[in-house]
Amino acid sequence: MSEKKEYKVIGTRPIRHDGVDKVTGRAIYGADFQITGLLHGRVLRSPHAHARIVSIDTSRAEAHPGVKGVVTAQDLPEAEDKIADLGEGAVSLKYLCDNILASDKALYKGHAIAAVAATDPHIAEEACELIDVEYEVLPPVLEVRAAMEPDAPIIHENIRTSSLGETGDKPSNVASHIQFKKGDIEKGFDEADIVIEREFVTGTVHQGYIEPHNATALYNPDGQLTVWCSTQGAFTVREQLAEILQYPISKIKVVPLEIGGGFGGKINVYIKPVAALLAKKTGKPVKVLMNRADVFEGTGPTPASYITVKMGATKDGKITAAQTSMAFEAGAYPGSPVGAGAMCIFAPYNTENVLIDGYDVVVNKPKTAPYRAPGATNAAFGSETVIDELAEELNIDPLEIRLMNGAKEGDHRADGPVFPRIGFIETVEAAKSHPHYTAPNGKKHHGRGVASGFWFNIGLESSVTINVNPDGTVNLVEGSTDIGGTRASIAMQAAEVLGIPAESVNPTVVDTNSIGYTAVTGGSRTTYATGYAAYEAAQDVVRQMIERAAKLWDVDEANVQFTDGEFSSINGKEEQISFRDLSARLGETGGPVVGRATMNPAGAGGAFATHVVDVAVDEETGKVEILRYTATQDAGKAIHPSYVEGQIQGGVVQGIGWALNEEYIYNDEGEMTNASFLDYRMPTCLDLPMIDAVIVEVPNPGHPYGVRGVGEVPIVPPPAAIANAIYDAVGIRMTELPMSPDRLLKAMGKI
Amino acid sequence: MSEKKEYKVIGTRPIRHDGVDKVTGRAIYGADFQITGLLHGRVLRSPHAHARIVSIDTSRAEAHPGVKGVVTAQDLPEAEDKIADLGEGAVSLKYLCDNILASDKALYKGHAIAAVAATDPHIAEEACELIDVEYEVLPPVLEVRAAMEPDAPIIHENIRTSSLGETGDKPSNVASHIQFKKGDIEKGFDEADIVIEREFVTGTVHQGYIEPHNATALYNPDGQLTVWCSTQGAFTVREQLAEILQYPISKIKVVPLEIGGGFGGKINVYIKPVAALLAKKTGKPVKVLMNRADVFEGTGPTPASYITVKMGATKDGKITAAQTSMAFEAGAYPGSPVGAGAMCIFAPYNTENVLIDGYDVVVNKPKTAPYRAPGATNAAFGSETVIDELAEELNIDPLEIRLMNGAKEGDHRADGPVFPRIGFIETVEAAKSHPHYTAPNGKKHHGRGVASGFWFNIGLESSVTINVNPDGTVNLVEGSTDIGGTRASIAMQAAEVLGIPAESVNPTVVDTNSIGYTAVTGGSRTTYATGYAAYEAAQDVVRQMIERAAKLWDVDEANVQFTDGEFSSINGKEEQISFRDLSARLGETGGPVVGRATMNPAGAGGAFATHVVDVAVDEETGKVEILRYTATQDAGKAIHPSYVEGQIQGGVVQGIGWALNEEYIYNDEGEMTNASFLDYRMPTCLDLPMIDAVIVEVPNPGHPYGVRGVGEVPIVPPPAAIANAIYDAVGIRMTELPMSPDRLLKAMGKI
Repeated sequence: MSEKKEYKVIGTRPIRHDGVDKVTGRAIYGADFQITGLLHGRVLRSPHAHARIVSIDTSRAEAHPGVKGVVTAQDLPEAEDKIADLGEGAVSLKYLCDNILASDKALYKGHAIAAVAATDPHIAEEACELIDVEYEVLPPVLEVRAAMEPDAPIIHENIRTSSLGETGDKPSNVASHIQFKKGDIEKGFDEADIVIEREFVTGTVHQGYIEPHNATALYNPDGQLTVWCSTQGAFTVREQLAEILQYPISKIKVVPLEIGGGFGGKINVYIKPVAALLAKKTGKPVKVLMNRADVFEGTGPTPASYITVKMGATKDGKITAAQTSMAFEAGAYPGSPVGAGAMCIFAPYNTENVLIDGYDVVVNKPKTAPYRAPGATNAAFGSETVIDELAEELNIDPLEIRLMNGAKEGDHRADGPVFPRIGFIETVEAAKSHPHYTAPNGKKHHGRGVASGFWFNIGLESSVTINVNPDGTVNLVEGSTDIGGTRASIAMQAAEVLGIPAESVNPTVVDTNSIGYTAVTGGSRTTYATGYAAYEAAQDVVRQMIERAAKLWDVDEANVQFTDGEFSSINGKEEQISFRDLSARLGETGGPVVGRATMNPAGAGGAFATHVVDVAVDEETGKVEILRYTATQDAGKAIHPSYVEGQIQGGVVQGIGWALNEEYIYNDEGEMTNASFLDYRMPTCLDLPMIDAVIVEVPNPGHPYGVRGVGEVPIVPPPAAIANAIYDAVGIRMTELPMSPDRLLKAMGKI
Repeated sequence: MSEKKEYKVIGTRPIRHDGVDKVTGRAIYGADFQITGLLHGRVLRSPHAHARIVSIDTSRAEAHPGVKGVVTAQDLPEAEDKIADLGEGAVSLKYLCDNILASDKALYKGHAIAAVAATDPHIAEEACELIDVEYEVLPPVLEVRAAMEPDAPIIHENIRTSSLGETGDKPSNVASHIQFKKGDIEKGFDEADIVIEREFVTGTVHQGYIEPHNATALYNPDGQLTVWCSTQGAFTVREQLAEILQYPISKIKVVPLEIGGGFGGKINVYIKPVAALLAKKTGKPVKVLMNRADVFEGTGPTPASYITVKMGATKDGKITAAQTSMAFEAGAYPGSPVGAGAMCIFAPYNTENVLIDGYDVVVNKPKTAPYRAPGATNAAFGSETVIDELAEELNIDPLEIRLMNGAKEGDHRADGPVFPRIGFIETVEAAKSHPHYTAPNGKKHHGRGVASGFWFNIGLESSVTINVNPDGTVNLVEGSTDIGGTRASIAMQAAEVLGIPAESVNPTVVDTNSIGYTAVTGGSRTTYATGYAAYEAAQDVVRQMIERAAKLWDVDEANVQFTDGEFSSINGKEEQISFRDLSARLGETGGPVVGRATMNPAGAGGAFATHVVDVAVDEETGKVEILRYTATQDAGKAIHPSYVEGQIQGGVVQGIGWALNEEYIYNDEGEMTNASFLDYRMPTCLDLPMIDAVIVEVPNPGHPYGVRGVGEVPIVPPPAAIANAIYDAVGIRMTELPMSPDRLLKAMGKI
């Protein structure tokens, strides 16, 4: 694979196939779905952050006119001591089920307790208030450090990992401990001329997708369950439903409708099993929609965390040791992304001696869910701030120290993997030579900061089939939810192989009955893995078309070649036929041509980013304004540069929100006090400059076009970069997110 | 291929996959389809059978409140002198378009003239009455013999074939002439000891599907046209729309919903292009539904015909010559199935000297459409009656004369093809030895008749993909409309290969974007060709699974075999794993497994049937009662015997209706006077005994399980068999269909 291939479709910017449908309002989202005889479901949620459920009496609700059915955890299968396999490791089925409908305890404000199906959504809502739940209220624990205290209220009596990481006898809120080691951490610090150790705190933030969760479920009388919904992965919904409902996968069909954002938050199921239970009870199709408060309080945000980072370096800037202890809030049930954070935190640097400890800690908040590079942003906020401080202390340019220590092909991460060809150094160089970085930076209370980030990206399973139409266009069938333009980025990879325009590939995302297994759209995997499957399926088409051309010309297949959309005979007869013309002759040469491929590729290749940001700090209000933002990133190969830029810009903006504004604000009873988009302040375009996205292309050797995933890593550097810029502006190291006006004023001694 | 293979799934009778959905009313048919913003369309139809359209003024309709758009032929693309390619030969685009919306002339009562889209179907209907059409009424010609007269009113000025078959100078209603010859017809008749020549007339009959035509169309703002409808072939609808609308195939998606019967009548499009035109004009989705009168008057029935048959035989029963002249009504535009009738008429017999002439004749009736073995029933009514008369004259048992002259492997038809292994003789033997045929038959006015029939069956293109689920079930994706249980018969062929139960195969019929090209469900091809594709796709799955097992066991693929649902290592290690268990391990061995196959098989193999019927004739009323009916048929191999029996029973019943009751009754102005199910009398279960279906299995060498198509041939023998039984009962040869009470009374001299 040479690094400078010539492509005809790859790297161009065609209009996305679903674009017109979406801007004209024709695209069908989950809430739009209609079916004859539809009932409407509504979920009753716990008003308490921690409470034992003494009793639930649904009789008044059931008697309410218009109510067709009420379900509680009693309607879920017995889950105690069962293990659910969701394809990525075993988890407790009881935890899974309890998060759908609480059985013995409510573990967070907003925890689903019961649900009603009625002829009208308003009746369902009214009837929820007629469900009598007796609670024994327990003290909540709402923060990771408090939860690790020996005398903390215990959330799950069966958890036994101590805050030191060993499995003990006493109940604990520490669900698990992981450790990655490389080299000799003591020796590393001994070799250092300077050692810096800091503590960092990050808040609970939500993905903030515009479209709330939705699900319509129907059990046909023969037991076939169909669920129409928005999701990042229809097959993952199928798996979760199969486990939670203890129902055969083959009797479940999940139909993915369009999705209004996910960012990791639409992988786990919440109301989908509830809709199924209500559908089973009523014998009717039931639609359940969340409102915004449900989304904030009842679905997984990304974890708050407490992180210590200690790093040592020699006088000339060589980082000799890096150590961290990361405690992540899992929310009500075990399973935070602390492992991913631990994989990412020091990954950009080839440091000889590394020690990483990670703790997964339960608290009385919603069970956390993935959010764009889950765990890596929390982690980088610590490590990239400490590196900035090292550079400052050593009087080395902060990009220079990254170049000096940057990871390259052949280096290995603390958690084991050895890097193939990667582009970290190239992103730092691109930042360093960018006009933004070389521009003057001297105004009072203005500051500039940089930070880098890593996300490992994933591969996983994808399936694609391609059907050739008689007019030389093809229909591409895939199972990957299209969130950020993947219909286009996948179609383009097939188009390149077939030598036809992107517009001649017509991609369709179908239900779980109609395509091979395909994992979630997430982990920056879709353009990489489903795109790879499209590439291979197109190759399968070409192989078959070569057979057809050989048949037409009565020559050996080996004597037919395919270049630039033309089949030609390279031996004997001088024949030539275009892809389009041959497509019209498939019937006469043996029937239709269908290409297919499935993938589970190993070489996802890591993504690196380096960001530069200029801020202005208002000394009176504590408000931080983003003046200029440049994000360089190794995309491997940008299939559709506009959507790569869009992913970079979107990730940066979410990182800025996380850095400056966003957090779940809780009162002492564990109630979120800002569960609306008005109060949970996400950045809007009025708050931000245009983000300058710089695509670096160091082809990934694990993909035929060199694709690396691009969606996640851009959210990693912003909080650290902005913290470093704030320091540059006002001389204060912020170590808690969000760096909101009140915290900044406090840090500056103004309040 | 041995004739007595042992199968585990093939030949069993599982519940059809769509059965519960259909009996519980959950299946979604075209008229059920709903979409936001839907408008309703209604078609204005010609009150005249033949009229020049002088002018159409739509202004009053357009001004009517609630009307959103009105279309006429002006909204169709210019079609004059263009040729449309619908995959099976070129046809005039003008004829195609004019049958959708008449441009210059209305050619039958019920011919679509204009259409209205409105907010409500009733408003649309009202507004049709506000369209002012000025007609110049012309004399209609309503019967094939009349249409062939030199002074007949001319329907198309550009048609020039004379009634003798030559292309002449004068306009004519004879659209085309075909001729098949074998041997020397004169010599054949010279060799005969007895020659019989008779004339036959058959009426216009309708397929009588329960569900009227329906279509909902939507143009998205980017020009993507989606049509939701019931059809026998979504891809055929796509092709017809592309030609009629002169619109790219790749911008058209056809979504086939469930279908309530077709029998050939749901292949041609009528209101689908109209819905598309209205959708284009209004920018909204538009649904158009037919009522029953629209279906009778505005869609294609099967042709009425006038047939002469002349056959000669030696004293000992050898048929030496067979000659026919068949004139079929094409309806308003050329294209009757006279060619198919000509291919079938003498096909059951290996007669040395044959001459067949066929004429396609336009008349002022709806353009005819296929109806179950199109043309063959008309043809067999003649030939099988004459053979009965020959047998009677020669005092030979009517089944015996068929055995003596029956076609066998290696014999060739008058139209060319040489028979592979066929089962005609076996059907005659099965009839002869059946208790029905050997039972006494002597009561007054009771009679017994026999007749045979042939249908050639077709192959054409089919595509199937099979996706393996982790629980060892598979999802089978196909493009064949399921009318008579083909989800089951196709799924069973895949299940047999995979060694899993039929219930473990989950078949889905998808839209034209989601599967490879698949031709119509018709021509008795679906279980044969799509089933063949399912067989091959399952083989593709097995090949890949063998690779996975080899990978798991670290052995060579050649050392893995698959038998009875188990993979085993046949060399070295003694490993074994079931299909189900290996399905759970696909992720770890390289990703999902998707099998695919496409077919355009040549060896459809012909279908033969021999029927025995007992009737009672009521001398006072002329009513013929069917006392007992036995139908033997060579199915090759019955995949699902219940559905083969169902096809045989259904075909027989339709043949009985055609024989005794059904016909379009016209007044002199060319208006159908019985365009309702009340007046167009189809047989109900109260009119009929249980039909005894006897499946004979002579495997078709052109299919891996020996499948022959079964759906069509059972409609072929009934009219002739019943005519022969009536003769046996009352001594009168009926030569005109239907053999209704009035015709029979007249023939008996009672009126």
